[in-house]
Amino acid sequence: MEDRRGQAGIPNLPEIQVKTLSSPSPVKPVLVCGLPGSGYVGKLAADYLVTVFKAKKVAEFYATSFPPHVNINEDGVAVRLKGELYHAETGQGNDLLVFTADAQPATSDGAYQLAEAVLREAKNLHADLVFSLAAYITGSFVKERRVFGTATSLEFLPRLSQNGVQIMKEGGISGMNGVMVGMAKLQGMEGVSLLGETSGYLLDPAASHSVLEALSRILGVKIDMTSIEERAKEAQQIFSQVQGMAEQGVEEARGAKDEGTPGYIA
Amino acid sequence: MEDRRGQAGIPNLPEIQVKTLSSPSPVKPVLVCGLPGSGYVGKLAADYLVTVFKAKKVAEFYATSFPPHVNINEDGVAVRLKGELYHAETGQGNDLLVFTADAQPATSDGAYQLAEAVLREAKNLHADLVFSLAAYITGSFVKERRVFGTATSLEFLPRLSQNGVQIMKEGGISGMNGVMVGMAKLQGMEGVSLLGETSGYLLDPAASHSVLEALSRILGVKIDMTSIEERAKEAQQIFSQVQGMAEQGVEEARGAKDEGTPGYIA
Amino acid sequence: MEDRRGQAGIPNLPEIQVKTLSSPSPVKPVLVCGLPGSGYVGKLAADYLVTVFKAKKVAEFYATSFPPHVNINEDGVAVRLKGELYHAETGQGNDLLVFTADAQPATSDGAYQLAEAVLREAKNLHADLVFSLAAYITGSFVKERRVFGTATSLEFLPRLSQNGVQIMKEGGISGMNGVMVGMAKLQGMEGVSLLGETSGYLLDPAASHSVLEALSRILGVKIDMTSIEERAKEAQQIFSQVQGMAEQGVEEARGAKDEGTPGYIA
Amino acid sequence: MEDRRGQAGIPNLPEIQVKTLSSPSPVKPVLVCGLPGSGYVGKLAADYLVTVFKAKKVAEFYATSFPPHVNINEDGVAVRLKGELYHAETGQGNDLLVFTADAQPATSDGAYQLAEAVLREAKNLHADLVFSLAAYITGSFVKERRVFGTATSLEFLPRLSQNGVQIMKEGGISGMNGVMVGMAKLQGMEGVSLLGETSGYLLDPAASHSVLEALSRILGVKIDMTSIEERAKEAQQIFSQVQGMAEQGVEEARGAKDEGTPGYIA
Repeated sequence: MEDRRGQAGIPNLPEIQVKTLSSPSPVKPVLVCGLPGSGYVGKLAADYLVTVFKAKKVAEFYATSFPPHVNINEDGVAVRLKGELYHAETGQGNDLLVFTADAQPATSDGAYQLAEAVLREAKNLHADLVFSLAAYITGSFVKERRVFGTATSLEFLPRLSQNGVQIMKEGGISGMNGVMVGMAKLQGMEGVSLLGETSGYLLDPAASHSVLEALSRILGVKIDMTSIEERAKEAQQIFSQVQGMAEQGVEEARGAKDEGTPGYIA
Repeated sequence: MEDRRGQAGIPNLPEIQVKTLSSPSPVKPVLVCGLPGSGYVGKLAADYLVTVFKAKKVAEFYATSFPPHVNINEDGVAVRLKGELYHAETGQGNDLLVFTADAQPATSDGAYQLAEAVLREAKNLHADLVFSLAAYITGSFVKERRVFGTATSLEFLPRLSQNGVQIMKEGGISGMNGVMVGMAKLQGMEGVSLLGETSGYLLDPAASHSVLEALSRILGVKIDMTSIEERAKEAQQIFSQVQGMAEQGVEEARGAKDEGTPGYIA
Repeated sequence: MEDRRGQAGIPNLPEIQVKTLSSPSPVKPVLVCGLPGSGYVGKLAADYLVTVFKAKKVAEFYATSFPPHVNINEDGVAVRLKGELYHAETGQGNDLLVFTADAQPATSDGAYQLAEAVLREAKNLHADLVFSLAAYITGSFVKERRVFGTATSLEFLPRLSQNGVQIMKEGGISGMNGVMVGMAKLQGMEGVSLLGETSGYLLDPAASHSVLEALSRILGVKIDMTSIEERAKEAQQIFSQVQGMAEQGVEEARGAKDEGTPGYIA
Repeated sequence: MEDRRGQAGIPNLPEIQVKTLSSPSPVKPVLVCGLPGSGYVGKLAADYLVTVFKAKKVAEFYATSFPPHVNINEDGVAVRLKGELYHAETGQGNDLLVFTADAQPATSDGAYQLAEAVLREAKNLHADLVFSLAAYITGSFVKERRVFGTATSLEFLPRLSQNGVQIMKEGGISGMNGVMVGMAKLQGMEGVSLLGETSGYLLDPAASHSVLEALSRILGVKIDMTSIEERAKEAQQIFSQVQGMAEQGVEEARGAKDEGTPGYIA
């Protein structure tokens, strides 16, 4: 064969590629990550930060460990799977570097490689603290949305508990949301995970809202929650209606049963 | 151990190998890909283009991410799994470079690496547009075979919709058929996906025919559809017979049921 | 971290390692491979050749794609998974190089890499023909054990059919037994697969015997089949007993059923 | 793209990283490994050795083949998955180097790479014997906890059998506990596996105790078993209570059944 890709000296497609789009000078930046996972809590929160702060894209990350797939956006345009790093100017002491992605890597090695690349970019932009936003799946519907947390050093934990975060004891966090935190120390950064309590059955803007409130308190950075509060209310209304219909169906079925006819149980 | 394969300096079998068979000078070539996947729509269409234009093979692609398997052809000859790139002279403004393969890579990294290698070869032959042909699985049998589509830039979409292609909103395309399009931009190419509506239950030459008709209209390249129209008619006849037998069985069963005997429901 | 394994320049454990144990001068050697797979037909046949020709080990092959596992032999000794290449002096025109292994690689890339390494060793010892022995799983018990086959070139097929091998039309062969043949051409070798018909339910020395008989006829190399014929007879006796007990159990159950008591169906 | 990670010359995150924390001078050290697996027998035993000998950490091992996950310890601190090597001064002829980890690598290649890295560190510290402690899963509850074993050379086996270890004949050991032993010879070390009989249903300190007793006898190194004997007694008490409740429930159910009412079977 005349042409041998991949042999020493002839480049394959690199496993991780970083496309730098701008060179910002963020003010005391803090990295905040939210990737797709159970409950979509983290991704929804990260996307919200990008929107509400009109964040500017800094870099794109491509990984051959992303699933073999192309996304189609609302305009009908096909877009390769990627991760994106944004710079959000808060004007409040700490800027935010927000990282999110279309998918999680499909392999262990891919997850560690992508995390290392993102943390390295953030470190180069002088971040030394990374927050990972994710879901704490309970399997049941709750009125309140508590926020659970962990950090890579004991000394940071009071900063969480003093701001209403319940410290997790034992257990673990899987996927990129866990690996970003676990890999922080390698870059000399502190890693913190904030997990919003949610059932896991429905998309839950209220859980993302809780997590963002906790982040806001911990950093002392105000975040305009108007829009996400509205989404949370809408979601709650829809859910109550569904619940109401279910309960009504159960009552009717019970009544029917008493009358000896088979009922429909919602 | 005296002999250490794989150590720095001693080559492994490269993950991607390209075997160049000829060096054509295609006229304004457009790359068209169809790989095995759900419904086989794309592969059948790609194979048809090779046949109907008497295309000449340009290169073979070998990947260690192909499943560990050897194919046996109709002559009884064992052939290693590979991808093949053909040059089809259309004599109509745009030549075609047709890419197809025996299988899809078994890993994410393998899919991205193979796509990159094929697009690079096409780019070297001066193609700057790639079509990926695949199936739009509906799960139900339909009379008409619509064609759905997406492209890597907004500006290309009218060229699709003006030629009878329904633009997809949201969603995505998995496997090589999606990755070929997603990776196009990396080579400075435009990527377009044409998905032929099909049930997904049967091999469906009519869906491949629809996709080829759309491709023909978009490029302004006439394709002799005689043979594939015949295959589509044959497939429809066979299907109608099967459907007829099924319905007859149902009627007989219903009749039997009325007479109080247990019936066979097809 | 002071010590970074795996970084450019610092060797990982190589993915394939070859330990050369001797440097034989085989006479017109033919490579014969039989790896564990469905029905164990190929491995049993390869092990038999090593035993009956008192073959000497030439090399050991280690792959990090073998399953993470250690075997324990009949003496209680723990042995790392490996492949082994033997030189069998037949004194009959063609010597044999016999390759077998404890397991198949767990990844696609691993299978192609190991096959390439083995074929390269055989090529270095001047082999230009490789036979892969495997099973043709039918799912039913048969009296005769036919042998099916394929080769990497059309010209070789008559040599198979003239020696009682049924040429396969279409289909394929999975795993190392297929990949060894598919990769043969890369080394400028002819690849042939011989598949012994077997149910797939039981270890079947008779199928291995059939395959070895076919190999013997094709190469014109006599192989002392005494021992494997005995094993095949023993296996048949055991099977007949099991079948007899099963049929007896069915008859007794039928009898019991007639008498209105629940029966045991073997 | 301006920045291409992973291309030749630009380092990825290495697949294995070793962080050296101290440079001890162990006295005739023996490597003892126990990783998480079925029954947790080996890990419990390895952790016990670290505690009872107040072992000092020598090195940490990081692998990108560990599952993508971060652990949270009892203090609420997030810790990246790792392996740990400790030096235990026994003051009794042989010091111990104890290796354990939070998880097993998720890939075959990862398991072999990590094993090689650990054995290399042990070899550098002049160990030439490695014990792997694991579980022998029986699926049933037994009073006695036998210990089964294997070694990489025939000559070592009497040292096992003379110390109450039952030599395994045929079979194998999967995962890191097997690979550590299989890879020992590559480093010129002897590898020994000690498997403690256990049901596999419950955490079983008695099985870990048996394995440690066997290790103690084989090496002639006394180990203070006080604490683990207590844990074994507690576990047995809890288990007896559970068993008693189950049997009582069965009796009550039987009694109820005689009285014609449906019973609860524990």
